[in-house]
Amino acid sequence: MAELLEQEYNIPIEELNTALSGGMFVHVRNMLDSMPTSDIALLLHSSPPKSRTVIWQLIDSSIQGEVLEELSEDVRNPILRSMTPEKVAEAAGNLDDDDFAEVLRGMPDTIYRKVLKSMDKRDRKRAERVLSYEEDTAGALMNTDTITVRPDVTVDVILRYLRLKGALPEATDYLYVVDKDEKFIGEVSLAALLTSQPVSLISEVMETDFEVIPATMEETEVASLFERYDWISAPVIDENGLLLGRITIDDIVDVIRENAAHSMLSMAGLDDEADTFAPIVKSTQRRSLWLGVNLFTALLAAFVSSLFESTLDELAFLAVLNTIVPSMGGVAGSQTLTLVIRGMAVGHVTQANQRWLMGKELAIGFYNGLIWAVLIAGVVALWKQDLMLGAVIAFAMMMNLIAAGLSGVFIPLMLKRMNIDPALAGSVILTTVTDIVGIFTFLGTATWLLI
Amino acid sequence: MAELLEQEYNIPIEELNTALSGGMFVHVRNMLDSMPTSDIALLLHSSPPKSRTVIWQLIDSSIQGEVLEELSEDVRNPILRSMTPEKVAEAAGNLDDDDFAEVLRGMPDTIYRKVLKSMDKRDRKRAERVLSYEEDTAGALMNTDTITVRPDVTVDVILRYLRLKGALPEATDYLYVVDKDEKFIGEVSLAALLTSQPVSLISEVMETDFEVIPATMEETEVASLFERYDWISAPVIDENGLLLGRITIDDIVDVIRENAAHSMLSMAGLDDEADTFAPIVKSTQRRSLWLGVNLFTALLAAFVSSLFESTLDELAFLAVLNTIVPSMGGVAGSQTLTLVIRGMAVGHVTQANQRWLMGKELAIGFYNGLIWAVLIAGVVALWKQDLMLGAVIAFAMMMNLIAAGLSGVFIPLMLKRMNIDPALAGSVILTTVTDIVGIFTFLGTATWLLI
Repeated sequence: MAELLEQEYNIPIEELNTALSGGMFVHVRNMLDSMPTSDIALLLHSSPPKSRTVIWQLIDSSIQGEVLEELSEDVRNPILRSMTPEKVAEAAGNLDDDDFAEVLRGMPDTIYRKVLKSMDKRDRKRAERVLSYEEDTAGALMNTDTITVRPDVTVDVILRYLRLKGALPEATDYLYVVDKDEKFIGEVSLAALLTSQPVSLISEVMETDFEVIPATMEETEVASLFERYDWISAPVIDENGLLLGRITIDDIVDVIRENAAHSMLSMAGLDDEADTFAPIVKSTQRRSLWLGVNLFTALLAAFVSSLFESTLDELAFLAVLNTIVPSMGGVAGSQTLTLVIRGMAVGHVTQANQRWLMGKELAIGFYNGLIWAVLIAGVVALWKQDLMLGAVIAFAMMMNLIAAGLSGVFIPLMLKRMNIDPALAGSVILTTVTDIVGIFTFLGTATWLLI
Repeated sequence: MAELLEQEYNIPIEELNTALSGGMFVHVRNMLDSMPTSDIALLLHSSPPKSRTVIWQLIDSSIQGEVLEELSEDVRNPILRSMTPEKVAEAAGNLDDDDFAEVLRGMPDTIYRKVLKSMDKRDRKRAERVLSYEEDTAGALMNTDTITVRPDVTVDVILRYLRLKGALPEATDYLYVVDKDEKFIGEVSLAALLTSQPVSLISEVMETDFEVIPATMEETEVASLFERYDWISAPVIDENGLLLGRITIDDIVDVIRENAAHSMLSMAGLDDEADTFAPIVKSTQRRSLWLGVNLFTALLAAFVSSLFESTLDELAFLAVLNTIVPSMGGVAGSQTLTLVIRGMAVGHVTQANQRWLMGKELAIGFYNGLIWAVLIAGVVALWKQDLMLGAVIAFAMMMNLIAAGLSGVFIPLMLKRMNIDPALAGSVILTTVTDIVGIFTFLGTATWLLI
């Protein structure tokens, strides 16, 4: 049975592709009709840009909105551009507040205006409201589908009301209690409603030591609160304590995943690129910026080497060894940098302990420097039968690994203070430092001692 | 108010540290008593190893178990070693099943046996059961605190039963319906209980198009199902369809965060290191393996250079330029590698589309190669007034960027097929390839055309 289930969860991408390229559109449409929207979204993400348009047109228009909501911006925008403004307005109008805001925000300006025009008045009002909160804040992440109750009614009244209502919004685990000015004063869990006596008043069963989220809080901070306190949903309030809406865990999971992907991609200089199957020209453009920055730093390193051209001319073997010390410094520095960036992201690295951290990484740089200096000295001395050459490269290795450890802590802390994303800029600055220190100490010491 | 709240969420690490180093232990104890356990865990993660032991002893023993559950293995193990087996048994006995299993699994063998001995019979039985599921599977992630009901009773009976019970397990959003053989046959949401008429039968209001998780499913797969379907909890069954327990979203959030951290740290060769403040000797050891691998590959690259020693001897400026092409190849290759590793992790890269991906990266390598070949040729030709030298480096650049794109797709796919973690081994293999291809084409073409 277990195997059967795991099979079921795999999406038949291959079968779909074969059917698509064979022009069996009716078959594809039938397959799509039987798939949940999240699977269709995954399928679109896994397909080349050209197939995406074809697949999109085969999706039943009644579920296009739901699929849209689960697509990343990179995949969604070309699809939005291929639709008429009326269709977009219709699909987007059915979305939750937070997804509605995200789709609107992701639209190119010209399309956005056309879509807004073809919306009815109610949706246009709603668009204004959801867009009034800044992107990446709690306000932009929340939905307004809360159920609010008053403190002075009995549990029984609420139970009757809910039975009349017939269904609750998704992921509802709390009803919110507000006073007559809509001010948030407490919350009642569904579990409490079920386990309390019907005659109890809401004010008796509600929790009042609640935590609330201000609408202006940044979404990464909201996510770390959810993680820390194991919340499933949390109320969002404005600056006067009025209830605005709620944030649910499924949106937080998306934030956590996106942030993790962002850190990882940023460290490879892929700030903007998350779509593995983006068109070639777009990908080339996005990646070339980073390659350009790297070419500049590589030329800088070459320039440092060129200062020692006469030394290299006299002793060609130095050129052979010239890449070893910078390479080791780059790896050691990246290790420290990655740990510090992660430590900052999860809140372990703060003002209070950064001096201690600097001391630790200095010590590790020293010990690792010692280990690899001795080893490389031995290898080089044996290879070239030259003890002095071994000593020169050992010294450079030692210096560079210490520089790598210190830079690995200092650079991200400094960048953060300057409000620059350390994951994006950190590694290029770091390798520039370790390249230059490595080449300079190696060729400099060699010029001094060997020539 | 918003500012006030954000303040409140910051942990007073600095104040605590000052109090600690000042020996004001009573003050520290008072501060710890007023903090939620998750904040105490964060504080321990943010403190150097020595302070951790001191802080631990100041934590009220009634909440030590809860704190223990929120610590990462690296921080938890030294603390467990400092406690008596009886204390450990007591603290662990109060944990949820999944945390209980995690703590037991994390213990060094000698301690584990002592702890097991000092447990009462019930806890020892429980230990056996939770440890019977393999680590990182659904079985190891689940709790057994489910509420099960029979299909042939009315909603009203269940409501009475819950009122008698008085409280539900944390994050309960569904009651599970089982037949008389404990076979899982459906689920009823709390929302359905609240909105249904009391006279309805459970069999009428239960959902039967449920999804269940087999106990043997890997936790990463469980996590991607939770993400895809926005679950808050999900039932776990054995191979005969019997209900074993349930997995809740808070544990899934931990899995997602840990996997993300693992990918990021692995790519920097930090497979095992997640504790920013681990002791120096431990950190040095952990990082040295990766540095050793890198030294080996750096020596390999140096060896390739040494094949062209006479060329370098004749034309020293080649040594100056020798680092540029490998460096560009390394960056371009890492970009592709990172995208592919992430694409595989989120399920976008599969057997079905890898050929298309290879073609895409080949094309990007070609276009980027063209751009940077032209640019570097220009720079070198101007710098040294040597058109031929410019042509040589341009050719090497072109070749290496194409090799980088192809390796960036091929290496992780190959590693995955060999069941090796691409995040860990991918980048070192990739840079070895780009270093060797870069040096070989540059110095090789130079030897052929310039000497």
